[in-house]
Amino acid sequence: MTILSDSATLAAVATLAGRLPQIDAEAAEAALARQNSLTKPPGALGRLEELAIFMAGWQGRERPQIDRAQALVFAGNHGVCAQGVNPFPQEVTAQMVANFEQGGAAINQLCLANDATLSVIALALDRPTGDITEGPAMSEDETLTAMRRGAEAVDPEAAVLVLGEMGIGNSTVAAALAMGAFGGAAADWVGRGTGSDADGMARKTGAITRACARHAGAAGLDILARLGGREQAAICGAVLEARARRIPVILDGFICTAATVPLFACDPRFLDHCVVGHVSREPGHARLLDALNQRPILSLDMALGEGSGAALALGVLRAALACHNGMATFAEAGVSDG
Amino acid sequence: MTILSDSATLAAVATLAGRLPQIDAEAAEAALARQNSLTKPPGALGRLEELAIFMAGWQGRERPQIDRAQALVFAGNHGVCAQGVNPFPQEVTAQMVANFEQGGAAINQLCLANDATLSVIALALDRPTGDITEGPAMSEDETLTAMRRGAEAVDPEAAVLVLGEMGIGNSTVAAALAMGAFGGAAADWVGRGTGSDADGMARKTGAITRACARHAGAAGLDILARLGGREQAAICGAVLEARARRIPVILDGFICTAATVPLFACDPRFLDHCVVGHVSREPGHARLLDALNQRPILSLDMALGEGSGAALALGVLRAALACHNGMATFAEAGVSDG
Repeated sequence: MTILSDSATLAAVATLAGRLPQIDAEAAEAALARQNSLTKPPGALGRLEELAIFMAGWQGRERPQIDRAQALVFAGNHGVCAQGVNPFPQEVTAQMVANFEQGGAAINQLCLANDATLSVIALALDRPTGDITEGPAMSEDETLTAMRRGAEAVDPEAAVLVLGEMGIGNSTVAAALAMGAFGGAAADWVGRGTGSDADGMARKTGAITRACARHAGAAGLDILARLGGREQAAICGAVLEARARRIPVILDGFICTAATVPLFACDPRFLDHCVVGHVSREPGHARLLDALNQRPILSLDMALGEGSGAALALGVLRAALACHNGMATFAEAGVSDG
Repeated sequence: MTILSDSATLAAVATLAGRLPQIDAEAAEAALARQNSLTKPPGALGRLEELAIFMAGWQGRERPQIDRAQALVFAGNHGVCAQGVNPFPQEVTAQMVANFEQGGAAINQLCLANDATLSVIALALDRPTGDITEGPAMSEDETLTAMRRGAEAVDPEAAVLVLGEMGIGNSTVAAALAMGAFGGAAADWVGRGTGSDADGMARKTGAITRACARHAGAAGLDILARLGGREQAAICGAVLEARARRIPVILDGFICTAATVPLFACDPRFLDHCVVGHVSREPGHARLLDALNQRPILSLDMALGEGSGAALALGVLRAALACHNGMATFAEAGVSDG
């Protein structure tokens, strides 16, 4: 049973926010008190302290642990590629899925380096979604099916969930989702994605503008169905399921973050258990993080996707908990606290 | 034998830059070519690619490895504490050294998390350096002795060296070193350090101003002797020894970075093998990194010292090499490269 098992409509899913588990304020306060007792000036570990307290709140214990970290990468193909928005053929999506399965991609190495179990879920790669410049990407049923695939993939025993994506053309979809939810011009949200040149950028910008004009007025999860794709819907499903199970989530870059925008548009509380692993070089990402009131953990000029920035941030999260749980207090160490 | 064994004067050390090993451009180029063949758009791993290429250049091989990572934390006490620049008593330096030795500090947990061997070297804690507002911190002999201690501590087998420091009052010393080398006003370089209040900040700013006025005109390693301290000198010695052995260095925050400023003032090439692990919350650090033409790896609002930001960045460096060495090429994976 996942949180989406009984949700027959997108409208029903959109109303769930108020009924989801909230952060455990008492555990978070206990974690803050512990941080302030450790042998360092209060606050001196900066974001590491915030991350430890965030984990404590979601795990509901003063000393959170990461016994199992799960990484999920969802892959999909996109009808908007017919508009010439990407220099790579759509076959590359399946080729990269095979590369993930054989262990040859960046995300494989980063999951090994930071001790996360990686699963890759390819979503109907032989049936690209509809071309968003001409109609909706997905029907409601297709959207819910992909969301359920995302929810079902979540390991109930995971202590933290790293999310990522792969899909030729999906930086166009990401920009359309961001513009559909937050407005602005296509040029505000578009970037080079995977190696577009100036002509390719013009085709991307044009396609995003036309798609958003066609689907103007879409709201909530209808934004996801109309402008998104299967891997975006699966990410939304995984985010919801993780929340229902109190599993904190590390989102990846522009495309992964943009996938969650329809949830945020329904209710910002849907993303309370999410942090963003890094800010991408893709220029729309910093703007999107501002709109979502999120501060990224890392800023390393990366723009790969696959969950790579989120998996790298998992290492920082692990280090934050190592300090939180392993450091001596002033009393234990016999250090004067001023 | 260390590089400093035969250097009887600071003036002799200052002339070494041109005779130190340089980066192996051929190995770096081979590493770049490898990066461009891996299953990702060229450059998509951003700083991770740069770090892998940097490591390749210093290790002199296309596929650099980190078999052993060493972390060194140097501790010292400072006569300038007589000016009331720090709210903590100087005994805390020795207390924190004991905490390091017992495994209770942040740096212990971060070295465990990122697989680095930690050594802590306390430098004559019972004999604080001279008060820099009244005279030089150290004689030339004292400076060279501390530099040699730093050089001797470097493990010749280390693949990378993480540097850090501990010393009550040493954020005042760091600001004085930065101002002594790069000018400006004390207010440009000073920050709260370990919990100074407004009155404490005024005493710090005043002490730095008086110290820099007293030692105006100092240049090169004379800046280190006049305005520095033993842990700063030891960091300079370790940086030099690492360079002689082609061991890349990860510097920590404001105080650790400022310790290297006298070397930079002699010749910027002295720091070619150094990266900076993070930018500290201490406001002078960002300004100092600009002056040194360094970009930090992490920015996490940390301000602890001890090598904590550098040890955290070691995890990013390890991840960079995991991608560099472990990823499949386009040809190996059968992925179309556009």
